[in-house]
Amino acid sequence: MRFDVEASLTYDFATPCEVLLLVEAAHGPDQVVRSEALTFWPNVDAVRVDDPVTFERRTVFTASGRINALYRAQVDIAPRAPDLSAAPAMAIRDLPSAVLPFLRPSRYSPSDRLERFARHEFGDLEGGRRVMAILAWIAENVNYRAGVSDAGTTAVDTLIDRAGVCRDFTHLVIGLCRAADIPARAVSAYAWRLEPPDLHAIAEVYLGGRWWLVDATGLAPIDGLVRVATGRDAADIAFMTIFGEATLVEQSFSIQAAT
Amino acid sequence: MRFDVEASLTYDFATPCEVLLLVEAAHGPDQVVRSEALTFWPNVDAVRVDDPVTFERRTVFTASGRINALYRAQVDIAPRAPDLSAAPAMAIRDLPSAVLPFLRPSRYSPSDRLERFARHEFGDLEGGRRVMAILAWIAENVNYRAGVSDAGTTAVDTLIDRAGVCRDFTHLVIGLCRAADIPARAVSAYAWRLEPPDLHAIAEVYLGGRWWLVDATGLAPIDGLVRVATGRDAADIAFMTIFGEATLVEQSFSIQAAT
Amino acid sequence: MRFDVEASLTYDFATPCEVLLLVEAAHGPDQVVRSEALTFWPNVDAVRVDDPVTFERRTVFTASGRINALYRAQVDIAPRAPDLSAAPAMAIRDLPSAVLPFLRPSRYSPSDRLERFARHEFGDLEGGRRVMAILAWIAENVNYRAGVSDAGTTAVDTLIDRAGVCRDFTHLVIGLCRAADIPARAVSAYAWRLEPPDLHAIAEVYLGGRWWLVDATGLAPIDGLVRVATGRDAADIAFMTIFGEATLVEQSFSIQAAT
Amino acid sequence: MRFDVEASLTYDFATPCEVLLLVEAAHGPDQVVRSEALTFWPNVDAVRVDDPVTFERRTVFTASGRINALYRAQVDIAPRAPDLSAAPAMAIRDLPSAVLPFLRPSRYSPSDRLERFARHEFGDLEGGRRVMAILAWIAENVNYRAGVSDAGTTAVDTLIDRAGVCRDFTHLVIGLCRAADIPARAVSAYAWRLEPPDLHAIAEVYLGGRWWLVDATGLAPIDGLVRVATGRDAADIAFMTIFGEATLVEQSFSIQAAT
Repeated sequence: MRFDVEASLTYDFATPCEVLLLVEAAHGPDQVVRSEALTFWPNVDAVRVDDPVTFERRTVFTASGRINALYRAQVDIAPRAPDLSAAPAMAIRDLPSAVLPFLRPSRYSPSDRLERFARHEFGDLEGGRRVMAILAWIAENVNYRAGVSDAGTTAVDTLIDRAGVCRDFTHLVIGLCRAADIPARAVSAYAWRLEPPDLHAIAEVYLGGRWWLVDATGLAPIDGLVRVATGRDAADIAFMTIFGEATLVEQSFSIQAAT
Repeated sequence: MRFDVEASLTYDFATPCEVLLLVEAAHGPDQVVRSEALTFWPNVDAVRVDDPVTFERRTVFTASGRINALYRAQVDIAPRAPDLSAAPAMAIRDLPSAVLPFLRPSRYSPSDRLERFARHEFGDLEGGRRVMAILAWIAENVNYRAGVSDAGTTAVDTLIDRAGVCRDFTHLVIGLCRAADIPARAVSAYAWRLEPPDLHAIAEVYLGGRWWLVDATGLAPIDGLVRVATGRDAADIAFMTIFGEATLVEQSFSIQAAT
Repeated sequence: MRFDVEASLTYDFATPCEVLLLVEAAHGPDQVVRSEALTFWPNVDAVRVDDPVTFERRTVFTASGRINALYRAQVDIAPRAPDLSAAPAMAIRDLPSAVLPFLRPSRYSPSDRLERFARHEFGDLEGGRRVMAILAWIAENVNYRAGVSDAGTTAVDTLIDRAGVCRDFTHLVIGLCRAADIPARAVSAYAWRLEPPDLHAIAEVYLGGRWWLVDATGLAPIDGLVRVATGRDAADIAFMTIFGEATLVEQSFSIQAAT
Repeated sequence: MRFDVEASLTYDFATPCEVLLLVEAAHGPDQVVRSEALTFWPNVDAVRVDDPVTFERRTVFTASGRINALYRAQVDIAPRAPDLSAAPAMAIRDLPSAVLPFLRPSRYSPSDRLERFARHEFGDLEGGRRVMAILAWIAENVNYRAGVSDAGTTAVDTLIDRAGVCRDFTHLVIGLCRAADIPARAVSAYAWRLEPPDLHAIAEVYLGGRWWLVDATGLAPIDGLVRVATGRDAADIAFMTIFGEATLVEQSFSIQAAT
C-alpha cells in the first residue's frame, strides 16, 4: 500500500545547539521510499547520520532561533501477515546476534521484574499464542488515557496504573514478551487512521525467524504503519533529541493513503 | 603486552535450559587472540553467536546437570594511550551512527537525571579534562565497598550511597559523561593485577574520534585489560545469562602476564 | 485466651550505641498483660519510653559488647470477632482524628499508586466485603515465599512480584484498603501456631467505628495474636532500632497457649 | 508579633464528595489565635476533626458543585530564638515518645538512604551546628526553582537534581537531619513576606528538648510563620485532601502584619 507522510516541526532555540531528528521513513526491506524531502526554514547546516543496521535515517543539524523542519515522503509498504498465532517461539541458540539485545530488560521495559506476573498470567502459552494473549490482556485491563503517565513511566508502573498512552502500551508488551524470552523492541511509525494524528509507538516481536509488528492499543491498522525508528524502548526512538534548550512552537504529523 | 587468561565456571542445572556465555576475549582491533579454547565437561551442544559490530564472542549451550565451562586464551594487547587530557569533545554531527546509542540514558546510567549535578560539579570543563575530573571526583567521594549495592543499583543510587563496586563506579562514570553529551559505555574485561581476581567492569568514553578505556576504581592498570564484552551498561555485559534456573558451584577468573 | 510469650535477642555491639527495643506486649484495651519481665545480660542502663496513644511499650538501652535481652510475659487476649463482612465503611467526617493518618499513602504502602488497580478489581464492593475480597485476591494471587523481597520492597513491588513474606502481604493489604479510603495500619505481634515461630506482621483496618485485625497470609489465627507495635507500615514497627552498628548472634520469638 | 491571615479556596466538584481542609492556624503553645472564621459559600455540611496532639485544626465537609472556602484569622506569634548553634543533640533515651516517629525514614524523606552522604559531608558536626551546616549546604548547592520536582519527588531526587521548591528543600533538611538521628518534621505555615504569597513548607528539628523551625530556602523570616499543620513529611500536611474528583477554580493565601 502507498502512503504520503508529512512531519512539520517548529521550535525556538534561544541559544545555538545541535539537534538530532528522527522523523524520516526508514529505508528497509519492508518499505520502499519512492520520493522524499527534508527541508529546513530558514536553512540550517545539517548532516546525515544514517544507521546501516536499523535502517534509521537520522539528520543532525545546528539550530538557532526559530526553525521549521518539514519532511515529506511517499512510501510503499509491503502487506504484513496479521496472524501470528502459528508463529513459533525460538531457541536462544537460533537467534541472530543482532536480536539478542532485545531479550534484555531495559529502562522502560524492566522485564526481569515482570517474570512472575508473566508466568502466572501467560505461563501455559508459547510463541505467537502467548503474544496474542498478552495483547488481549492489555486491551482488556489497560485503559488508553493521556495524563496518567509521563516520560519516566515504566512497564511496571503501567501494569499498576492500568492506564497510559501508546508508549506505555508498547513498553508493557515488550516487558511481558521479554519476560518469556521472546525478543521484543519498540518502533515509531506514521500510523494511518490514528486519531488524533501523531507519531505512533508500537512493539515488534521476534518469532519464527522474523519480526512481527503488534499494537496493543488497536488504534491503527498494522498495514498502515510507515516505520521510522527501531530500538530497545522509547529511549531509542525519540523523534527529536535536543542537545540544549528549545521551546515547542508547533508540530504535526500526518499520513494519507496515496491516490 | 601478552596475557594468559582463564575462566572456569561450574553450575548445577536441575532442569535443562539454554545458557548464553560471554567470557571469551573479543577479537577486536585493539587485541589479538593468539590461541584459545572453550571446553565443556561433560560435553554440551553449543553454538557460536558472535557479534560483528561489538566483536563480542558469545556461545549458547544447552545445560543439564552439573556443567563446567573452561575458557583459556593467550591474547596480545596493544598499548593504550593513558592520557586523555588533550582529547577533545566531539560535536554530535561528527559521531558515527554506531556511537549514538551511548549518548542516551540507560537503565543503570540514567544520565538525564544527572545533568544538573554534572553541570554544577564539572560544568566548566570539556572533553578529556572533564572525564578526568569525573574520575577524580569519584575516586575522592565514592568508597569501593561490597555489600552496599546490588543488581538493581543505578548511578543515581551510587551518587547518593557514595559506595559500591566496580559495576557501580562504571555506571556513575557513564552517567556523568553522558550527562555532558560525551558518549560512554560499559566494558567487561579480564584485569591484570586486580585483587581479588574477577571479571572487571570499566567504562569507555568516546573523545577525539576514538574510544578510551577509563577506570574510576583505579584497581587495575588500563594496559592490562583483556576486553570481553561491550554494552550500554551492566545489563549488556553479563558473563552468563541463564534462561532457566541454576545454582553456582564454583567460578574463577584469572589473568597472568605471559612469559 | 491466655498466652506465654518470649523473645530472646543476642547481639554484638563493637562500639557503644543506643538501641530501641519494641518487643514487649502492648498494654491495650484488647489485651491484658498479667505478668512480664524484660531482663538484660549483662545488665544495661535502660529507660522506658512508652506511648500513651498506641499503647506501645518501648525500652531504650545503651549497648556495648555482647548483650542478651530476654522478654517474658503472660497475656490475656479478648476474643476477636472474625467476621467483618457486615462491617460498614465510614464517612471521612466520622473518623476520629487519630485514625486520619492511616488513610494516607506511606513509604511501603503508596496507596495513591494503587487506586486504579483497586477500583478495577474491587470497585463494586464496600466496607468489610471489600476488605474480604482484597484478602481473598491476595491469597489467590500472591505466593508466600522468602527471598523475593527485601527491606525496600513496597506494596507496588509485591503487586508485580506476586510473592513475598508477611511484611509484604501486610503492605499490600494496607495499600489496597487505603486506596479505597479505608484506614489501614500495620501491627507486629506474637502469633500462635505461626511456623516457623517469629514476630508476625499483620494489617488492621478501621470499619464500623473500630479496628479489625486481618491476615492475608492465613498463617496464624487472629485470636492468637499478642500485639506489640502499631504503625503506618513496617517502618514504624521494627522490633529493634540500632543507632549504630551491631551483629546478630541469635534471636528467637515464641508463644504458647498458657495452661 | 500579630498577623492577619487569609485563605480562599474555590473548587468545582462535579460529583459530591468529602473534603478534608487543613488551612486553619494551629492552636498551639507558640501561637494564640485571637479571632478566626471559616465560612463556605454556598454553605456546606461541615464537621471539625481537631487533633489534640499536633494542635492541627481540620474541617471535613461534603462538597458538591462550586464551593468557596474562606478562612480568616488574627494570630499572635511568640518570638522564636533564631540561633540554634548552641542547641545540643539529644540521646535517644531522652526523647519523648511522641518525638520518636520523626527519627524514622518516611516516603519523601528516606533518611536511611542518606546516611553515608550525611556522614561524609557533616559527620564531624553535632546538634545545632550540624543542622546549620545542612542548611548552609542546601542554600549553596540547591536552586530554588519550580518545574523540576513534582508530587513524587523525594529528598534523594532533590539531592541529585540540585533544584526544587520549598517542599523539596524541607524534605532534604528532614532527610539529612534524621540521617544523623536528629528528629525532624514538616510544617506548613502562612509565611510573612513570602513572594509570591502561598502556604510555605518548612522543617522543624528537635534539639535540646524543644522543636526549632528552620527554613533552608531563606525565603521568609522564621518569626513570621503562622503554623497550620505538622507531620512526617509533605504527605501529612496537604492543605486539602479531596476524596473524589475536583477542579481548581482559584485559590490564594495571604498574611499581613496586623496594625
